[in-house]
Amino acid sequence: MGELMKAEIIAVGTELLMGQIANTNAQYISGRLPEAGIGVYYHSVVGDNPLRLIECLDLAIKRSDIIILTGGLGPTKDDLTKETVAEIFGRKLVLHQESLDKIIKFFEKINKPMVESNKKQALLPEGSIVIENNNGTAPGCIIEEGGKVVIMLPGPPKEMKPMFDDTVLKYFNSKSNVKIVSKFIRIFGIGESSMEEKIIDLIDNQTNPTIAPYAKDGEVTLRVTANCGIDDDGEKIIEPTIKEIKNRLGDAVYSTENKNLEEVVGELLIKNNISISFAESCTGGLLSAKLTDIPGISSVYSGGMVTYSNEIKQHNLNVNATTLNLYGAVSSQTAKEMAVNIRKVMKTKLGLSVTGIAGPGGATENKPVGLVYVGLADEKGVDCIELRLWGDRNRIRNNTVLNALDMIRRYILKNCNAI
Amino acid sequence: MGELMKAEIIAVGTELLMGQIANTNAQYISGRLPEAGIGVYYHSVVGDNPLRLIECLDLAIKRSDIIILTGGLGPTKDDLTKETVAEIFGRKLVLHQESLDKIIKFFEKINKPMVESNKKQALLPEGSIVIENNNGTAPGCIIEEGGKVVIMLPGPPKEMKPMFDDTVLKYFNSKSNVKIVSKFIRIFGIGESSMEEKIIDLIDNQTNPTIAPYAKDGEVTLRVTANCGIDDDGEKIIEPTIKEIKNRLGDAVYSTENKNLEEVVGELLIKNNISISFAESCTGGLLSAKLTDIPGISSVYSGGMVTYSNEIKQHNLNVNATTLNLYGAVSSQTAKEMAVNIRKVMKTKLGLSVTGIAGPGGATENKPVGLVYVGLADEKGVDCIELRLWGDRNRIRNNTVLNALDMIRRYILKNCNAI
Repeated sequence: MGELMKAEIIAVGTELLMGQIANTNAQYISGRLPEAGIGVYYHSVVGDNPLRLIECLDLAIKRSDIIILTGGLGPTKDDLTKETVAEIFGRKLVLHQESLDKIIKFFEKINKPMVESNKKQALLPEGSIVIENNNGTAPGCIIEEGGKVVIMLPGPPKEMKPMFDDTVLKYFNSKSNVKIVSKFIRIFGIGESSMEEKIIDLIDNQTNPTIAPYAKDGEVTLRVTANCGIDDDGEKIIEPTIKEIKNRLGDAVYSTENKNLEEVVGELLIKNNISISFAESCTGGLLSAKLTDIPGISSVYSGGMVTYSNEIKQHNLNVNATTLNLYGAVSSQTAKEMAVNIRKVMKTKLGLSVTGIAGPGGATENKPVGLVYVGLADEKGVDCIELRLWGDRNRIRNNTVLNALDMIRRYILKNCNAI
Repeated sequence: MGELMKAEIIAVGTELLMGQIANTNAQYISGRLPEAGIGVYYHSVVGDNPLRLIECLDLAIKRSDIIILTGGLGPTKDDLTKETVAEIFGRKLVLHQESLDKIIKFFEKINKPMVESNKKQALLPEGSIVIENNNGTAPGCIIEEGGKVVIMLPGPPKEMKPMFDDTVLKYFNSKSNVKIVSKFIRIFGIGESSMEEKIIDLIDNQTNPTIAPYAKDGEVTLRVTANCGIDDDGEKIIEPTIKEIKNRLGDAVYSTENKNLEEVVGELLIKNNISISFAESCTGGLLSAKLTDIPGISSVYSGGMVTYSNEIKQHNLNVNATTLNLYGAVSSQTAKEMAVNIRKVMKTKLGLSVTGIAGPGGATENKPVGLVYVGLADEKGVDCIELRLWGDRNRIRNNTVLNALDMIRRYILKNCNAI
């Protein structure tokens, strides 16, 4: 087993130094490079300034084997990554006809005129390996020289990510003799410290694979990482650990494939052919938007309602005026009626409802911000859970969606066959 | 007017190099430092490794006036930021009794035992200015030496941010005589290159304020930045440039206050007291979710429907079977009926509909992925736009939402008074 190659990521863009965006590209690339046996040792961010970029590159070439640059491949004058790298390596920028053709076609497809400056994007350092961009106009490229590898990728994550996945990772995989394989176990419905207590002996005593927990927005993820040769079956090294963790945490584990909760729930609904509809109040369509992120969901999801006001709850969803007056819109009684009624209106097997106070306004003495009810009805009856969430409007809405999805997941695990 | 002080931000933590989290601390600090006349020239990320941290610090001390470190102030052995900085400056770590008392009290408050290792957090470099942490156990500190300032802050954003706002910014404001003021102009409905052509002379010829464009997910933003004395009115320097840009780009400018499109549209609806409802097909609730992100929107938004299937479009939204059969669900005819009908069903001033093919499936010979219709109905009639979007499901859905919001915005600008 050889040594890990050392990589560093340089993001180019004044917008990062102004705080307009976070460097999520470095995060994404860092998360994936270990799969190709590459360790990330540094991230740097530098502005659209050729002198400072040259200094950063000089240092990077000294201390790292692999340098991945993101950003600065756009059509404007500020974009100077290729120009600067080409200068450092004494290479000319030459027209790559295939890339130019692609750019021209791209503008035809989106039915907009190509301006002259876009041609600059087809100029690439002489002798570099070109990385196709199927989601934008800037191709990337790879330069190999003196045992170093310099890779340039565009800044927009939607362009960068597929180029990294489809080309860069494969490029490295063909060169490395070691790799790091990670699996992510996703967990919902148990806190980070309770989870840690249940598996602390595994975390402390294992060296290959290792287990590292991290918590994020109401969810917990465990990363299980094996270190192995490029031809070894890393998953096999990891498998017994995953099994043991699943044994200890039970239904709280919702994915060992790093899937989102909405993906898992969408798949469960589709596999079991369970139709569902939503009546959303405080989430305002967010739950429905999350589930319809999943391609093919239309076979089980045909629609829903956003019943934001009491009038709509009453007149369009037939919630009893008495229920609303007596218990209020944010109550288990209203949630239950909403779930039962949306199921009938939309003619689905399941009906799920959400009603709560997302804040910042709307709280009363007995009903604080963060109080949410989620109802779930089937042909036999209706269930309801009460949530007491904290944080800002955004956090409360997102956590409500996670809890609602988890309620569906647990319903299917309990009541259905195809898992 | 003095010169801008040069700052760099070093984040310490292997979790950043593993891609587990994004460096949002650097983003936050970068967004705020200009208020105190400080320009950020570099971000770096380095792991929990003393040798590499020393190298990073040596370089930073050479090239920057101010170095802000985040992370590595925790109780564990891995946390070594203070130790490393103290070594570089030849200072001892000494017990800061006040901080220790605070840590002890903190654990009493959350009703958990303090472990021995937490005491380490009260050890601070001799002669440093202590920064109180009211949201955690790790105090921060400031070292001034040889014209350089080194600031250490904890990694968790919930601890770091208030410490930065309450102490660090004030510290700098009391020292600086210059500042940078930025305004962000947000633009929709015009591409980056066409926009640049219209204002290229301004971008090229202006030095104070400067203008810098960047594109992101179908939107374009211009950053206008003035350099001025600490007591000058930076906004006044920027104002004429903003005016000129607005003159040239017209209605494409939707905010000069760095607001999101949904915020702008939400405010326009509320100010003009225009009620609206949505009938969403391919966006599956995303439009509604975006608008209900805005607190207080309930005064104009009472609800909507997600009509994902043809059955729901026909039976719950009364779209004519003939329309669906003749033109299909993805057609201007269906979009128009949906808009007209949701307006009636929900009893609102405006009704907006979305129907399209978000992909990856669902395309036909004449109707490719990315074909979307957005309809907007009022009491007088109904309008419809056809979009031809590209990219993955996610991008198409998000861009549809932006276009729908922009359609509402332009309707209000044209037809209403309160802007």
